[in-house]
Amino acid sequence: MMIEVGIVGASGYSGTELIRMLSTRSDVSITRLVAATSAGKQVSELYPAFAGVVDLTFESFDADALAGLDVVFIALPSGEAMNIVPQLLNRVGRIIDLGGDFRLPTPELYEQFYLHKHTAPSLLGEAVYGLPELNKHQIVDAHFVANPGCYPTSAILSLLPLLKSGLILPDGIVINSLSGVSGAGRSSSIEMSFAEVNENVWAYKIGKHQHIPEIQTVLEHAARQRVGFSFVPHLIPINRGIYTTIHANLVVSTTTGDVNEVYREFYTDAPFVRIRQTVPQIKDVTMTNFCDIAFFIEPRTNQLIIISTIDNLVKGAAGQAIQNMNIMLGLPEETGLMRKELQHA
Amino acid sequence: MMIEVGIVGASGYSGTELIRMLSTRSDVSITRLVAATSAGKQVSELYPAFAGVVDLTFESFDADALAGLDVVFIALPSGEAMNIVPQLLNRVGRIIDLGGDFRLPTPELYEQFYLHKHTAPSLLGEAVYGLPELNKHQIVDAHFVANPGCYPTSAILSLLPLLKSGLILPDGIVINSLSGVSGAGRSSSIEMSFAEVNENVWAYKIGKHQHIPEIQTVLEHAARQRVGFSFVPHLIPINRGIYTTIHANLVVSTTTGDVNEVYREFYTDAPFVRIRQTVPQIKDVTMTNFCDIAFFIEPRTNQLIIISTIDNLVKGAAGQAIQNMNIMLGLPEETGLMRKELQHA
Amino acid sequence: MMIEVGIVGASGYSGTELIRMLSTRSDVSITRLVAATSAGKQVSELYPAFAGVVDLTFESFDADALAGLDVVFIALPSGEAMNIVPQLLNRVGRIIDLGGDFRLPTPELYEQFYLHKHTAPSLLGEAVYGLPELNKHQIVDAHFVANPGCYPTSAILSLLPLLKSGLILPDGIVINSLSGVSGAGRSSSIEMSFAEVNENVWAYKIGKHQHIPEIQTVLEHAARQRVGFSFVPHLIPINRGIYTTIHANLVVSTTTGDVNEVYREFYTDAPFVRIRQTVPQIKDVTMTNFCDIAFFIEPRTNQLIIISTIDNLVKGAAGQAIQNMNIMLGLPEETGLMRKELQHA
Amino acid sequence: MMIEVGIVGASGYSGTELIRMLSTRSDVSITRLVAATSAGKQVSELYPAFAGVVDLTFESFDADALAGLDVVFIALPSGEAMNIVPQLLNRVGRIIDLGGDFRLPTPELYEQFYLHKHTAPSLLGEAVYGLPELNKHQIVDAHFVANPGCYPTSAILSLLPLLKSGLILPDGIVINSLSGVSGAGRSSSIEMSFAEVNENVWAYKIGKHQHIPEIQTVLEHAARQRVGFSFVPHLIPINRGIYTTIHANLVVSTTTGDVNEVYREFYTDAPFVRIRQTVPQIKDVTMTNFCDIAFFIEPRTNQLIIISTIDNLVKGAAGQAIQNMNIMLGLPEETGLMRKELQHA
Repeated sequence: MMIEVGIVGASGYSGTELIRMLSTRSDVSITRLVAATSAGKQVSELYPAFAGVVDLTFESFDADALAGLDVVFIALPSGEAMNIVPQLLNRVGRIIDLGGDFRLPTPELYEQFYLHKHTAPSLLGEAVYGLPELNKHQIVDAHFVANPGCYPTSAILSLLPLLKSGLILPDGIVINSLSGVSGAGRSSSIEMSFAEVNENVWAYKIGKHQHIPEIQTVLEHAARQRVGFSFVPHLIPINRGIYTTIHANLVVSTTTGDVNEVYREFYTDAPFVRIRQTVPQIKDVTMTNFCDIAFFIEPRTNQLIIISTIDNLVKGAAGQAIQNMNIMLGLPEETGLMRKELQHA
Repeated sequence: MMIEVGIVGASGYSGTELIRMLSTRSDVSITRLVAATSAGKQVSELYPAFAGVVDLTFESFDADALAGLDVVFIALPSGEAMNIVPQLLNRVGRIIDLGGDFRLPTPELYEQFYLHKHTAPSLLGEAVYGLPELNKHQIVDAHFVANPGCYPTSAILSLLPLLKSGLILPDGIVINSLSGVSGAGRSSSIEMSFAEVNENVWAYKIGKHQHIPEIQTVLEHAARQRVGFSFVPHLIPINRGIYTTIHANLVVSTTTGDVNEVYREFYTDAPFVRIRQTVPQIKDVTMTNFCDIAFFIEPRTNQLIIISTIDNLVKGAAGQAIQNMNIMLGLPEETGLMRKELQHA
Repeated sequence: MMIEVGIVGASGYSGTELIRMLSTRSDVSITRLVAATSAGKQVSELYPAFAGVVDLTFESFDADALAGLDVVFIALPSGEAMNIVPQLLNRVGRIIDLGGDFRLPTPELYEQFYLHKHTAPSLLGEAVYGLPELNKHQIVDAHFVANPGCYPTSAILSLLPLLKSGLILPDGIVINSLSGVSGAGRSSSIEMSFAEVNENVWAYKIGKHQHIPEIQTVLEHAARQRVGFSFVPHLIPINRGIYTTIHANLVVSTTTGDVNEVYREFYTDAPFVRIRQTVPQIKDVTMTNFCDIAFFIEPRTNQLIIISTIDNLVKGAAGQAIQNMNIMLGLPEETGLMRKELQHA
Repeated sequence: MMIEVGIVGASGYSGTELIRMLSTRSDVSITRLVAATSAGKQVSELYPAFAGVVDLTFESFDADALAGLDVVFIALPSGEAMNIVPQLLNRVGRIIDLGGDFRLPTPELYEQFYLHKHTAPSLLGEAVYGLPELNKHQIVDAHFVANPGCYPTSAILSLLPLLKSGLILPDGIVINSLSGVSGAGRSSSIEMSFAEVNENVWAYKIGKHQHIPEIQTVLEHAARQRVGFSFVPHLIPINRGIYTTIHANLVVSTTTGDVNEVYREFYTDAPFVRIRQTVPQIKDVTMTNFCDIAFFIEPRTNQLIIISTIDNLVKGAAGQAIQNMNIMLGLPEETGLMRKELQHA
């Protein structure tokens, strides 16, 4: 039986990544692609890479046309999903929102960091936060999932086991992340033009990034304690990938074996988290749904330095969304996401 | 039934691309990986990207250990396969050589361009030239295939239909190609270091590149006429991809419709050649086995300008080798190579 | 005595390159910077690189304010200089237009390739074409110079000596050029965004580029014969630089010595043209006013392959404009443009 | 009167940067270029960019030949200068060592981080640490200067004023740096090849980098207190530039004005440090001797986030060495290093 899916916001980087990944599935039928600004155009007209592979046409949003689909992915810029979700809830099987509209608990927090009003505050508690390594049991029963942000995915997966185990102090954590430019979406700004980004680096939204409250809310809720951290994102001249370096203070002197055990135990049933013994590189996770994590104990400062890396468009967006879909539909988590899995398909 | 394959030269860029692509196949078992300099190391030790995906160990070359395999791919630097093939012929099901040792008809031509002696000249006529769009019927029956070079794949696919149809003059053709650096293999030279390649471009081996006689031999044999062309390869700062721009003189004034028809007819049964009506871009073929071709008639000069692009590691190496394997084994040509195909698998 | 200069269009890539280069001169005072969209902003506000170095403010265009300046550079997009020049001619000492508005001989040719009307056709014959290696004697006396385009600079410097000497056939020439993205100006299009340009290449304006008639007009006038060529520009993922590869047919069999002599004789008094014996690389000319040229005789095809490279913002724009200014003002051509020259300053 | 200089290790990235920068000076004569592996070759043979600009030949090391020079720069890999310096001290006017051999106070510390023996331990106290913003008065009288490392330059300039003023806690500081690949020197390793570095990022030498004791020694000595910090360097795919992001804990709640005043007062006489009010970008300092610094107070965590950026080959190597030379010779600090200065020369 075919899983019928629709993608709203299908012409952006996350949307096309969903098309790319879902079009390889024999059990999935991409039924509707909504992209307001490209309505009427063939996918291969806008993205010639899909010629001969995907034979679909972008269309305008129409809630009636989407009604009855098994799964609807929403891959819109922040502030747009909150106008769409109320029209789809209860009319489609499952909704997975890749944007930030339903990840925070209160409209106040949302408005403080997203800088515009939340128009569907009553739905803020409805969505399950779709980080499978944390919430798998809730995702199984969910009809509405808020897919995590890219930075939060790499930061939370790094910190959660450490905080829950009490190995690190919950305060004084420093998170620095480097991101490829696809994380900013398809952009027509001078700032994101090749000549400006190439041979350059800059930090941005220091202390103000909308992923700060997301990281904080999830960590505090899961670790049942207040968590204090600073987060600085940087843009670097690559297309894909997030590289996160975290400094945390160890509670007591700890061995590599101790930390390894904490991580390995926490991620026993997490096929996409790989605990590495060497320094991770972005290229090892590019085009995969893996999150690679390594850690280094620095006796001189009694700090734990954790490094994690993901592909922002896969584990940081489309791949994780598909992982959530698999779990919601009772399929093996890895379906369509791992080479190994494909071997045994 | 499983297809048992071995890869000799498994640790280079073409070798690991074969691992990447074959490891997704449910009908293929990668049985042996030969990599002399890395023998004894796990694949994931050298390439952490494969951790949790490919659980194999590189080993030294041993003809006895490979004997009986259904398919052996050879992905060695030029000059090495000719010492290996004689030991494997008749002991394995099929051999597909991704290098240049068996693509040319005579030892003299080989030695003139490859600048070393050919040690197995008696086998030079044995291999079928593995360009499926040209030789599919011969590949079906072949036990030994010489997989085409990356530049020749893009140049021959562009020119062959035009020469056979008589639309262009067989002389005065100009071929300029741009290549990503993975085409040069895993390299530890200063010349190929990031600081030298980045923000830079250079042409190389002008008039001396070893792909010149390959292009010439194949075109002349297929078009049954002498063909005259100049070929200048350039290195550009990207990882993957070949972009080839060709100028040829039209025999008579010709319409876009005429040229389109020649191409479409020639490639009727060629699922990996896409004739485009807009200018091709490398990113449209990256990580795929497609060759995108477009052409432009320039009335001012009565020339036909043809542009083609491939991923040098896929259609220019590993993907085409797998396409050849599929054909040799009687499988659908697209097996494991096209997203669309996967949908119907 | 100070040379007082103004720059109209000072906030684009060519304009800021003029600021960068002129601000090192002890004999030049940058008096006025016109940039309509940034009027009122400090240079260092828009370009922090200039903080502590250039203390000037962009202003709106006002012909009266520019009147009396010794030199006015115009670095505007095509179609804008023709509205400015008529207001400045006879009111400023010299005008050097870096754009394409005054490089072609007739309004018809201009409109065919620039795709808009020429509003000052009576001035089309007024400007001297500012290629110093060709026109130095005319530039000395000129009050109005049309600075050459970047592609034409590299193509004409490569071909002119060969055509004048009769070494190559004037027909059947093929010019392929690769350009860094700064050549397209400061751009806010999706097409020029980092994620689209990185790891990608494309050709554009095949047979239609506005530099085609410029190359043709200059070559035909200088060589006093009809010249036939095809020109295909490509965009590659680097910031600066043009790399041009040209194929031409030799009239008779020719030696390397013959060609060398033709070039060396022609460029005896051209301090910025370097005839190289090895393959040029873009990085050898980056941030300099040099044009490096090398050639290769291909006996197999009786063709001469010429490769030239420049920095599109220096010899292809601002540097050449300053070279023209030097000549117009009776200064040594190299003033402020060559490291060697600075040593002896 | 000409300043006669020699460069030992003239063919690496720092060495050629010295050539590039010094060759523009009218008061400097580059007399000898020592490069063991390229002895006998012309500079322009190895680096065609210098053709027509620098007419010198690399030679082998010969202390006698260097004797009597006004200034000798040493730009050798770590571990080599300590064999050279003893032969030159007292025989040349001034020595400026760009490497790490003479930056640390004890052979024990050196051997712990550089992992080889120090062969000239008696000279370890002889060199003045050549950070002009800290040590100008000592540099004036110095005959032997140890030029700072690139990471230490960006970290120390960021932290020193804050530590001396007591604004931040001397403990719990986190330093993350991103470096372009030229920082690793001219390299022929696979690791540094374009295909590996491009579209990739990695951290390295975590807790073990040889710049850790340099930063610590200098900060502790200058601030007269113990300083505790963690330092993680990352390699990113750009050629030039260092981008350093630092987290420090504020002692008490502090205003932007307070911090600004501390910085501005400390850097009153430092023409190459620019305190910025917006987020720095690498491209604003590329090819200059500037260090741009900005800071951000994060009330949520009571932390101060400081970002600084330099060109690793200029302020992080050759430019700073020339700044030191200027000071040692009693010249204005900016001579040959700043565009503005050139205007008034």
